[in-house]
Amino acid sequence: MESSIITLLTDFGLKDPYVAEMKAVVLSLCPNAGIIDISHMIEKFNVRMGAFVLASAAPYFPKSTVHVAVIDPGVGTKRRALLIETEEAFYVGPDNGVLMLAALKQKIKHAYNITNKRFMLSRLSHTFHGRDVFAPAAAHLSRGARPDDFGPEVQDYYVPELVKPRLGKNELIGEVLHVDDFGNIITNISQVDLEKISTIEGSRPRIRLGKKVAQVRFDMAYGETMVGTAVAITGSHDFLEIAVNQGNAAKRFGAKAGDTVSIRLSK
Amino acid sequence: MESSIITLLTDFGLKDPYVAEMKAVVLSLCPNAGIIDISHMIEKFNVRMGAFVLASAAPYFPKSTVHVAVIDPGVGTKRRALLIETEEAFYVGPDNGVLMLAALKQKIKHAYNITNKRFMLSRLSHTFHGRDVFAPAAAHLSRGARPDDFGPEVQDYYVPELVKPRLGKNELIGEVLHVDDFGNIITNISQVDLEKISTIEGSRPRIRLGKKVAQVRFDMAYGETMVGTAVAITGSHDFLEIAVNQGNAAKRFGAKAGDTVSIRLSK
Amino acid sequence: MESSIITLLTDFGLKDPYVAEMKAVVLSLCPNAGIIDISHMIEKFNVRMGAFVLASAAPYFPKSTVHVAVIDPGVGTKRRALLIETEEAFYVGPDNGVLMLAALKQKIKHAYNITNKRFMLSRLSHTFHGRDVFAPAAAHLSRGARPDDFGPEVQDYYVPELVKPRLGKNELIGEVLHVDDFGNIITNISQVDLEKISTIEGSRPRIRLGKKVAQVRFDMAYGETMVGTAVAITGSHDFLEIAVNQGNAAKRFGAKAGDTVSIRLSK
Repeated sequence: MESSIITLLTDFGLKDPYVAEMKAVVLSLCPNAGIIDISHMIEKFNVRMGAFVLASAAPYFPKSTVHVAVIDPGVGTKRRALLIETEEAFYVGPDNGVLMLAALKQKIKHAYNITNKRFMLSRLSHTFHGRDVFAPAAAHLSRGARPDDFGPEVQDYYVPELVKPRLGKNELIGEVLHVDDFGNIITNISQVDLEKISTIEGSRPRIRLGKKVAQVRFDMAYGETMVGTAVAITGSHDFLEIAVNQGNAAKRFGAKAGDTVSIRLSK
Repeated sequence: MESSIITLLTDFGLKDPYVAEMKAVVLSLCPNAGIIDISHMIEKFNVRMGAFVLASAAPYFPKSTVHVAVIDPGVGTKRRALLIETEEAFYVGPDNGVLMLAALKQKIKHAYNITNKRFMLSRLSHTFHGRDVFAPAAAHLSRGARPDDFGPEVQDYYVPELVKPRLGKNELIGEVLHVDDFGNIITNISQVDLEKISTIEGSRPRIRLGKKVAQVRFDMAYGETMVGTAVAITGSHDFLEIAVNQGNAAKRFGAKAGDTVSIRLSK
Repeated sequence: MESSIITLLTDFGLKDPYVAEMKAVVLSLCPNAGIIDISHMIEKFNVRMGAFVLASAAPYFPKSTVHVAVIDPGVGTKRRALLIETEEAFYVGPDNGVLMLAALKQKIKHAYNITNKRFMLSRLSHTFHGRDVFAPAAAHLSRGARPDDFGPEVQDYYVPELVKPRLGKNELIGEVLHVDDFGNIITNISQVDLEKISTIEGSRPRIRLGKKVAQVRFDMAYGETMVGTAVAITGSHDFLEIAVNQGNAAKRFGAKAGDTVSIRLSK
């Protein structure tokens, strides 16, 4: 292992003991682990938001980091527990798609269904697999346990449907992936997608968000326009992002995750 | 010392510099300490909630962890500062009960009143003993200071009244200990308590929360019932917990910490 | 370097991947760094609040700690990136004043404009210099890079205007620096300032907050007065602080950061 970093992403919030219990379990098994919180403020049960946040942060971590993600509405049912090994990192969590946006960006080498009770807490609750299954799995992995010891290899892990932007007639149609804490509206439209429609000379892009038509100029950074001006920029994640300089774009445009966003060129 | 983990639990919130000041003091005295946040989002001055959260998380930490809890409405008064040594861990904080649910679950070996100024910051404020008394005490302890050097042993530490569930006529009467961030209602009724009334065959438990009668089925896990269904389960802390599958039970039933909860058997 | 502690202060909040991305970049470059969060809950774009919180916490950290502060409304514009070396610590962040309250409390030895691309991520975004410029700068510094390798020395860094309390006729006029999470009102009036007007015997101080006259007694600590009583105390930061014992002073007095506060002596 080149890294003994274990990251945690949950929808547990910060007032309850749950996150600390997971960290305690990790440190009991692997005292040298460096534990980094990605976020515990994912909306309750919002697998898609968790998947997006994990996929955004994971590429920046050192090789062999173990990422644990517990957005787990199906805890206690027969949904499987997964350990995924990519060429860059390990992912541990429920088989509901929360791991997959991140894992698919890297090359998946193996996926295992965690079934080996040797790597779980001996007293297994029905409601808190974050502490009883996923945290100990990550700690054992970080200590050097072999991935293929955790359970049988599986191929049929759940892959969440990924909406790709569609190219219409002079129009690109995508959706809002995430609204961040600044109110920035992050879409699923990448720079490459934009280039498909950007060659029509003299055109002025018009952005439609949900039912509203946003008056937005394309720009490079938040700070170069006047305070309060809406701009469309390619954000730090390489996706088109609609922002208001020192303001809240999501409030202004009434936008939320899942909304349709389209970009149309008009003369 | 087998562990150099120091945990922090406060009601300081996350926007102010106070938590960082405590960590800075710890690291100045004990650079190798591993500091783990249990929670800083305890309701202001809510000693009981702090005690519950600490008692939930503490058992999962490695032996000899030093737990610091600062829910301290009496800071600056004559309330004592305590250092408690149990067979498993150390607890540092004010003598107002916040440490005691956790400490009493383990065997208390010694309790000391922290009076030795050698283990405090030299400039002692009247308003922030978290930074000036408790953080340095934890750091010195973690570095190897002897517990009995911190001050005189005491026996009369404050023990918060613990409401035990009462057994009535076919009825078990307890209270709501905590409402977690998912809206799960955690009661003080344990599995052992439940077994006292569960033997009446063919009976159907009816749960009364405050003035409402909750229609709740007993179940094993959140995920096995339909989304939106209320279930009574034995939670990960071994207490009866009322939850709504992927919903918020506290909102549905208008429940809050301190409410009476009763379980009655009817044919 | 005597310390490999890197602190982070941002207005990023806790639900997005941004803080984790900064930590990942730090750990990729400097695996042994100990990362401590000061706060990520600074009000969006509130440079003054960030500067205050950083200046409060920084003095408690070990010598040579590297403090990174990213309240950065001008990201992507020509505002400069700074590295400041004081006799106690290093400060990394935008040249908008956020670093300066803390740095000026210590003796500034050198200030550099970070321009050396060798210490930045190779793929530099326009919107997230926290991750692409400031986090790698801190990590390289912590690994032992020489401060004067980061770019040209500068003298004309931006220093925010600091309102000093004014002494009127039997009156001291200052302002509210910060309202903390307990609702305590922290002013810019220090103990030394207070001593200038406190010698008039038999006088009773009257505190005016904004347009309200607060009935407040001077006191030593929160806990010595009755619950619900307003007190004026010299807080843990050496500034006059108006607090309500176990209550919220800012709510009671309708006070917020920037409000005028005056102390007048009357017989």
